[in-house]
Amino acid sequence: MRTQVAIIGAGPAGLLLAHLLYKAGVECVILERRDRAYVESRIRAGILEQVTVDLLRQVGVHERMDREGLPHDGFALSTDGDNTRIDMKALTGKSVMVYGQTEVTRDLIDAAIHRDIPLLFEAQDVALHDITSARPRVTFRHDGVDRVLECDFIAGCDGFHGVARASIPADVLRTFERVYPFGWLGVLADVPPCDHELIYASHERGFALASMRSNTRSRYYVQVANTEKVEDWSDERFWDELCLRLGNEVAPRVTRGPSIEKSIAPLRSFVAEPMRHGNLFLAGDAAHIVPPTGAKGLNLAATDVAYLADGLADHYRGNQAGIDAYSARALARVWKAERFSWWFTSLMHRFPETDAFGRRMQIAELNYLRGSHAAQQSLAENYVGLPLH
Amino acid sequence: MRTQVAIIGAGPAGLLLAHLLYKAGVECVILERRDRAYVESRIRAGILEQVTVDLLRQVGVHERMDREGLPHDGFALSTDGDNTRIDMKALTGKSVMVYGQTEVTRDLIDAAIHRDIPLLFEAQDVALHDITSARPRVTFRHDGVDRVLECDFIAGCDGFHGVARASIPADVLRTFERVYPFGWLGVLADVPPCDHELIYASHERGFALASMRSNTRSRYYVQVANTEKVEDWSDERFWDELCLRLGNEVAPRVTRGPSIEKSIAPLRSFVAEPMRHGNLFLAGDAAHIVPPTGAKGLNLAATDVAYLADGLADHYRGNQAGIDAYSARALARVWKAERFSWWFTSLMHRFPETDAFGRRMQIAELNYLRGSHAAQQSLAENYVGLPLH
Repeated sequence: MRTQVAIIGAGPAGLLLAHLLYKAGVECVILERRDRAYVESRIRAGILEQVTVDLLRQVGVHERMDREGLPHDGFALSTDGDNTRIDMKALTGKSVMVYGQTEVTRDLIDAAIHRDIPLLFEAQDVALHDITSARPRVTFRHDGVDRVLECDFIAGCDGFHGVARASIPADVLRTFERVYPFGWLGVLADVPPCDHELIYASHERGFALASMRSNTRSRYYVQVANTEKVEDWSDERFWDELCLRLGNEVAPRVTRGPSIEKSIAPLRSFVAEPMRHGNLFLAGDAAHIVPPTGAKGLNLAATDVAYLADGLADHYRGNQAGIDAYSARALARVWKAERFSWWFTSLMHRFPETDAFGRRMQIAELNYLRGSHAAQQSLAENYVGLPLH
Repeated sequence: MRTQVAIIGAGPAGLLLAHLLYKAGVECVILERRDRAYVESRIRAGILEQVTVDLLRQVGVHERMDREGLPHDGFALSTDGDNTRIDMKALTGKSVMVYGQTEVTRDLIDAAIHRDIPLLFEAQDVALHDITSARPRVTFRHDGVDRVLECDFIAGCDGFHGVARASIPADVLRTFERVYPFGWLGVLADVPPCDHELIYASHERGFALASMRSNTRSRYYVQVANTEKVEDWSDERFWDELCLRLGNEVAPRVTRGPSIEKSIAPLRSFVAEPMRHGNLFLAGDAAHIVPPTGAKGLNLAATDVAYLADGLADHYRGNQAGIDAYSARALARVWKAERFSWWFTSLMHRFPETDAFGRRMQIAELNYLRGSHAAQQSLAENYVGLPLH
């Protein structure tokens, strides 16, 4: 089997890359370790930046998003129950779209199948070979048969734990990491959200987030210590803690209901440099992780593959500048998003080392944000996503 | 001896308060522990916000400042030797004034003597009494004689180590503190500055600041560990380290010369709440300390006493609202300046715990600042000083 670009991983990064290459007339094959049902049911992020929405429109996978997605022009910052609206639209001219990553993935898979983009689920024992040569190969087992995929380039879109980054010699990669001493306990419930916009709450007891997937499905989070176990959190305990942190104004509007998903996700910042080794390119979580505060993960994956698809398309037109610049170009944007995600996480969460002075710094920054147009604009321009170019 | 307002401390806070009260027709007496020569020779800050300049003009102590001060419309941020100018004037419409605190103090003392504002140097064993009563008293020894100053109010402008804050019962005060694990090694030298504006440098080896007191007197700083001793820093070692941190573009413009002052100052954030107890009001360093990054200390002292003078003047016109609101009003501005000073310090300095990820966060923030109008505007509006009202 031979193709131009072998894509490892059928998450949003790999799938969007495949569609961008398809539009550019570049061949690819996607290899995914899991089965389709698993991939389509992973609960992940839910906020699309304008630039991600534009990319989905560019590849023509936008109909259901435009129909079912919820455009948001603002969000609220809550300080110990006191709310301030950040009017993204007025501050930046841009909005974001609430549309679950799960839905994006489903739409991209449906469209890939419709477009006959080769997409192999349950590709096992994937291994990359000769990645620094002009003829890299990917070996894997599929339907019980050992297969070889020859290609010009490999796109590693297989996430933080994937094989792609692990295939780069350790002495070539420089990694940067911060593990946060807490996680997000998330609950998905089929109840109407407490507000039509998101509420990011900084509370003495810790962070909380009121989010949603639709007008009938809510997504709520509370910060918990890394030592907490999901079994110790009954629905009732979760709703009580959430309401406490959202404060007296919002709590009465929280509709409680049985959780249909409940889990604790750790928070991590991670970057691997460079994002290219020979003819292997890393994109999305394979190269970098952000904590979920500010919802940059999926959006960074989308912009990575936008740069990569441009570079690869240019390559086949005889111009190498795009793929040569890929790593630096992607990383410039990645570091800014890492900075924003780290800052927003640091501002909103209670850290074990947060002393009285530290808490006052958080409150002073939130009070400053409340009154400063420039500070709100800076927050908003990062939240809606910095420009691609 | 009797007056309306007893002012403890003849630093800029106490002196400016005295002149503001003088203009409002309120009587005061200033008691200063040190002698005049000592007070007039203390080397301190050198950057006046527009609001401080305006206050000095308001009290009519501005002639020499207007003649000798250097208005600055911008400053540079340097990242490992790479410079970006922050155009304060274009971003905020405001400037700052480079004019040493030493000069401000001299001008205010000269004017106080000229105006016959009672100013007693070498007032020893100052003690405050009955501060929660309507008739507070200050006892002290002057020229070998025990004296009593009766008053309506006491203004504690006697700095971090002064007697005023120490006179408030510990269970009434809430204090917040952060001691930084480094200090600033400062050198004053009669050489022309390397640039007509200030350069704040974030370098792998630590922070440096190129500042000035005039066109012929430079003030330079390098961050050093708290364990460093000034004796270990020859002039040559200082100049070498400074040039390294300012980078290749700036270093050739640094004129070296013998230091006329060389010292290490620790960095501290501190706030005491409330700033009023009975009829004692705290102002300036007596109530709060900021690290020097961003030059907020003197300016906060000036705005504290502006609020306090307004309140006291209103009191003698029969309106108590101003003195009742003093603590909350002053603290709202103090916390924002504390936040800014802490943030700017955190951004620019190397901390012992700064790992590779942490350094990249600093660099990413400086790169973001380089490209974002909103972020520059936020920095600039804090640097020139948030509005008084």
